[in-house]
Amino acid sequence: MDITAVNALNYEDFVSIFGNVVEKCPIITAAVWSRRPFVTLNALEAAISEFIDDLPESGKEGILRCHPDLAGRDLQSGTLTRESREEQARAGMDALSSGEASRMSRLNEEYKTRFGFPFVICARMNDKANILRQLTERCGNERAVERERGIEEVKKICRLRLQGLVLCDAPNKL
Amino acid sequence: MDITAVNALNYEDFVSIFGNVVEKCPIITAAVWSRRPFVTLNALEAAISEFIDDLPESGKEGILRCHPDLAGRDLQSGTLTRESREEQARAGMDALSSGEASRMSRLNEEYKTRFGFPFVICARMNDKANILRQLTERCGNERAVERERGIEEVKKICRLRLQGLVLCDAPNKL
Repeated sequence: MDITAVNALNYEDFVSIFGNVVEKCPIITAAVWSRRPFVTLNALEAAISEFIDDLPESGKEGILRCHPDLAGRDLQSGTLTRESREEQARAGMDALSSGEASRMSRLNEEYKTRFGFPFVICARMNDKANILRQLTERCGNERAVERERGIEEVKKICRLRLQGLVLCDAPNKL
Repeated sequence: MDITAVNALNYEDFVSIFGNVVEKCPIITAAVWSRRPFVTLNALEAAISEFIDDLPESGKEGILRCHPDLAGRDLQSGTLTRESREEQARAGMDALSSGEASRMSRLNEEYKTRFGFPFVICARMNDKANILRQLTERCGNERAVERERGIEEVKKICRLRLQGLVLCDAPNKL
């Protein structure tokens, strides 16, 4: 699908295809449909980023709170979105040793208690060891720093999901 | 559940319970958790309304685009959210005559083509005849009028969903 095809989608198909590029926030995709046509895939991605940046701090925290824990109860109960399931599996979150699992669980709880939103990281750009290390380190940050850091990770996840949906068969057109 | 119990919820349980008071927009519920404690249920509802009002116009259109058509393909394919299914059934949308169904379908398409978002109305406050009449009339409005009108209806739906979730066993506490 090239950007011309993306621009030709009605809002229902657009939201159906791109509605989860920001996890469980189809409103964001649905909102940026108003800004079509997009010159490139990067322009679509930029419109999503701008929408997120213009949200109040509570809205950014709301986005983070729509994300599941890494190796958390949604993974265990099979209720992750398809995208999250694939991303967490790729980073080895579905194959932790019992020691790693209990450490991850303890750190996730510590992080959520401290900040009031979950630890968000682009799993596809990190391996298991790196995720555990960053989770440990980021627990020590300030809340405002973590809110912005989490949103940066949301944007990385979004970029990779978009790229996965819009095949770059003609990169110069995207 | 009284408002004290609501205020004691962690964000995960809060979003799990209230995440669909605005259809498919858990980010809104997740965002207003930042504003707890709420003095009353009305204060929670007001926080949601304020969050919606502060969104750019594209964001309001995004909310509308997360709503299913009345008597549309989600109802037919069984993919409505539980809340929408119950509300549409109560208004008789699952028991239209073939003539009513084709008229509804035609008007829904006309509305979406004209405005770029679906016709939204609080089904629980309207019966079948009233819904068809308003859909017909509202097709003739200006886009900006319909965007605001649709958002008013979203807030009515939200209020009834909230009231359904927080039982008013002690109204003075809510």
